[in-house]
Amino acid sequence: MDNNKDLMKLIQNKFSRLSKGQKLIAEYILKNYDKAAFMTAAKLGISVGVSESTVVRFANELGFSGYPKLQKALQELIKNKLTTVQRLELSNDYISEENALKGVLKADIENIRATLEKINHKTFEEVVNKIFTSKRIYIIGLRSSTALAEFLGFYLNLILENVKVVGHGMSDIFEQMISVGEDDLVIGIGFPRYATKTIDALEFAQSRNSQVVAITDSLLSPLATKADFTLIAQSNMASFVDSLVAPLSVINALIIAVGMREKDKITTTFNALEEIWKDYNVYSYNLNNIEDR
Amino acid sequence: MDNNKDLMKLIQNKFSRLSKGQKLIAEYILKNYDKAAFMTAAKLGISVGVSESTVVRFANELGFSGYPKLQKALQELIKNKLTTVQRLELSNDYISEENALKGVLKADIENIRATLEKINHKTFEEVVNKIFTSKRIYIIGLRSSTALAEFLGFYLNLILENVKVVGHGMSDIFEQMISVGEDDLVIGIGFPRYATKTIDALEFAQSRNSQVVAITDSLLSPLATKADFTLIAQSNMASFVDSLVAPLSVINALIIAVGMREKDKITTTFNALEEIWKDYNVYSYNLNNIEDR
Amino acid sequence: MDNNKDLMKLIQNKFSRLSKGQKLIAEYILKNYDKAAFMTAAKLGISVGVSESTVVRFANELGFSGYPKLQKALQELIKNKLTTVQRLELSNDYISEENALKGVLKADIENIRATLEKINHKTFEEVVNKIFTSKRIYIIGLRSSTALAEFLGFYLNLILENVKVVGHGMSDIFEQMISVGEDDLVIGIGFPRYATKTIDALEFAQSRNSQVVAITDSLLSPLATKADFTLIAQSNMASFVDSLVAPLSVINALIIAVGMREKDKITTTFNALEEIWKDYNVYSYNLNNIEDR
Amino acid sequence: MDNNKDLMKLIQNKFSRLSKGQKLIAEYILKNYDKAAFMTAAKLGISVGVSESTVVRFANELGFSGYPKLQKALQELIKNKLTTVQRLELSNDYISEENALKGVLKADIENIRATLEKINHKTFEEVVNKIFTSKRIYIIGLRSSTALAEFLGFYLNLILENVKVVGHGMSDIFEQMISVGEDDLVIGIGFPRYATKTIDALEFAQSRNSQVVAITDSLLSPLATKADFTLIAQSNMASFVDSLVAPLSVINALIIAVGMREKDKITTTFNALEEIWKDYNVYSYNLNNIEDR
Repeated sequence: MDNNKDLMKLIQNKFSRLSKGQKLIAEYILKNYDKAAFMTAAKLGISVGVSESTVVRFANELGFSGYPKLQKALQELIKNKLTTVQRLELSNDYISEENALKGVLKADIENIRATLEKINHKTFEEVVNKIFTSKRIYIIGLRSSTALAEFLGFYLNLILENVKVVGHGMSDIFEQMISVGEDDLVIGIGFPRYATKTIDALEFAQSRNSQVVAITDSLLSPLATKADFTLIAQSNMASFVDSLVAPLSVINALIIAVGMREKDKITTTFNALEEIWKDYNVYSYNLNNIEDR
Repeated sequence: MDNNKDLMKLIQNKFSRLSKGQKLIAEYILKNYDKAAFMTAAKLGISVGVSESTVVRFANELGFSGYPKLQKALQELIKNKLTTVQRLELSNDYISEENALKGVLKADIENIRATLEKINHKTFEEVVNKIFTSKRIYIIGLRSSTALAEFLGFYLNLILENVKVVGHGMSDIFEQMISVGEDDLVIGIGFPRYATKTIDALEFAQSRNSQVVAITDSLLSPLATKADFTLIAQSNMASFVDSLVAPLSVINALIIAVGMREKDKITTTFNALEEIWKDYNVYSYNLNNIEDR
Repeated sequence: MDNNKDLMKLIQNKFSRLSKGQKLIAEYILKNYDKAAFMTAAKLGISVGVSESTVVRFANELGFSGYPKLQKALQELIKNKLTTVQRLELSNDYISEENALKGVLKADIENIRATLEKINHKTFEEVVNKIFTSKRIYIIGLRSSTALAEFLGFYLNLILENVKVVGHGMSDIFEQMISVGEDDLVIGIGFPRYATKTIDALEFAQSRNSQVVAITDSLLSPLATKADFTLIAQSNMASFVDSLVAPLSVINALIIAVGMREKDKITTTFNALEEIWKDYNVYSYNLNNIEDR
Repeated sequence: MDNNKDLMKLIQNKFSRLSKGQKLIAEYILKNYDKAAFMTAAKLGISVGVSESTVVRFANELGFSGYPKLQKALQELIKNKLTTVQRLELSNDYISEENALKGVLKADIENIRATLEKINHKTFEEVVNKIFTSKRIYIIGLRSSTALAEFLGFYLNLILENVKVVGHGMSDIFEQMISVGEDDLVIGIGFPRYATKTIDALEFAQSRNSQVVAITDSLLSPLATKADFTLIAQSNMASFVDSLVAPLSVINALIIAVGMREKDKITTTFNALEEIWKDYNVYSYNLNNIEDR
């Protein structure tokens, strides 16, 4: 694990002595190491706007015998995800307290933009189809992904009748999934650092031959290796917080795509709810009402 | 309430018969009715790129005796927020099943971009300061904002020792806040349609003289009227789902701004947690480990 | 409400001046006011072991023109349940800090014993039958009854596949019950002081023609008035805590009666779970394993 | 583990061929194997009302070379607690579907009665004292003990300001306890089958030198081995459900003993809450109000 941290630190330390073209590569890698890890030297050069040989010299500059060695180090770095402390240390240079608001919102815009490129649109359609053809749908998200799982479950429950969010409460995740089978769909949501229990649950779902969807940050994520369908959403944030903004946007899209097919059902449901909410005063209707209450 | 819906429908119905300049106004209003509601005819014209007189003619075209009447109708529309069903109906024309993914992600980028403009950066700094100077911090978010409240609480709890997420569980919100007082900070998170109970809780906090922060979608939100500090995040989504993407990004920024001031504390905490997590296998460390387990 | 408290205080204040027989009546009423409220003077006399005329004189002694007036006051007292503060005040005389352990455990034994007498055994069987013949089963318990609802749901979920605990989480109770219908069973659990939301939910269930079971403390409970079947469990505790010991015992019995009919199903389920639990180390297997881990 | 099951089955199979005195021993052991496991032959004989030599012959009859071997087998049986399936099988003979209600309620009365004997009254007082002298109080209960932990936390939170129920939600148990230290009190609640995570948490608390209270079923419980104070409550139920009735009664007693010392505080708190509850309609006040609403 120390190697990974060393690589990022190494790039930062060498930074001032790099040529202008090499600096562009360095910046690109620090920000997009997950992409860079799977690019050839030529492709990386094109992305950054430098020649392939500049890329090779950059690898040499860092002490690698060639670009393939640097690439392998980058791939290791993704596999053995940085610990929270390491990410915190690296965040120093990008986001300061003064510009946290601006820096974070801009980084999140970039996260969504990158997601639009990375996510497989066809897989997205297949997942929407699976949601309609499966007998039961289980949603799992633990740790910070709990919020995403609850949000997805909240809306799908208003549209469909066979949706269950698992992983919290008195029962353990296996009791809640004890009757999962081959006609069911299990949606696992997990971002670095991946919770062991979510991976266990997906593994268990696969052992029962159910279909598995992973909503995660990369095809190399341990969730993806247990999944039939993987929806990629970028969660990069060079700090101790996982940004779940792009994942939440993908979940918005999933809910809306499902809702579009069941418009009449939703209209009926919400018309009924509006009546009940009015009767039981769940929502505030307008400013005047609130003042007068 | 029907009036509001009628106004949006009216604009859509008249659309084909509008002049080119009027069409631009119509599109702007359909998308940004919350902004438009508070613009003069001149300002609206500038934003859209048409003359003030085109704006006035547009109002006449819709049957209003002048622009002020149209503006008043728009303000009513914000006050009496659209019901879910109405929003669902309006969503027809903007996002289709086919382009849900692209449409939603682009709309969310726009939500964050608009938030960067709308949010008060000075208020943001003041809130960060208040978080450090308050005795206790209570966080409230109900309904779909539950996910945001839990996420904010999750990270602040890792940094600070006086943070409490309220509103769920066996106790009611008032029992959980029974000792709230003037040295405390209450952060309420709520987006349309605003939960009555969140508003009640902020009102109660104010009656106890504690400081109140609202994270909400507009200064006209009922949460804002109970708050000392309001952080605006745009949640527009022309469908039945409230997009909480921009609010989540603001919360990311808040967590990181707080974390930046307590870097040493966080590093110590996470170093301790890393040890414990390793001992008790909470996180997956790398792909190989998982396969070998 | 003050009247009720006054009646109990009145009996306590007059106590020292009462005749020996009247003291027996006073003690009986203080402890069993819920039973006494529905006894004739003759029946009350028999229960206590005094003559009917002693009962009448006791009523006069308290200032009532006759026994029916005293009885009516007792009935009022049940209807308008004591507030927590009033119960706390009354508790002074029965349980002291020194004997809390002994006093409470003995009171709870008495609560279960009284429940065995009060509960309708035939209704219990009918409820077990309904659990098997209903399409879906919804369980609601709020406030301190949350624990009971979760416990019942935890075990029924291991036996049956159509059980849902509602009332907590992001969704409101009505969203969670939006598709409740005439083939469904709704089990409401509530003890003094009855949560308004539980009563609302049972009322809503009745409006949808589903069958309603109340697990509550008396046939006069507001839950009972919304129910087709009522299981009585005594929750008397002369202090600020509702004792849910007898209700929990009734729920144990309900779970076991249901389980007895599905023994093969449970055996299969638990055999599968034992395997999984062993694989994933959910339970501690024995002392030695723990030391060695 | 098979041995344990075999021992109980063995006793059942041999039952019909036993002498009258041996049958009494058999019945006693089947019901009280946890007590019997720590009695000498003489003591067991006295408890059952037979001679010591009858006990020895009983051991021989089962195939043991002497009573010490039988005793050791019984001790093993407690250590390696029966699996749920085994308990289910054994329950056949004691509780039938027909008498579930009566059988369970009577067994629960017996559970409380046995608890009154087993629990250490002095330890109970010490725990009450510790609750008042500790800086923070953490409460942990997982699986079916979740309900107990939530109930204890619910009431202690109304009396004290330094109480935290841990183990559920987005954070893991270690994050929630990350600042636990030597001035704190950790109350762990766990009954067979003991959740590994609760034991881990108590072990962690001990490693941080905080005081640990276990509320569990025996001094041999893995929770007790991690605790400074152990409160015993009997949870025997010869079926697949753990009876938490006696543990709940002990928790009632704990809450009331703590409350007795803070009567003025509680009265003030509840008076304030009554006002708020009335304003916000949390509780149903009487039958008439409900009908009229």
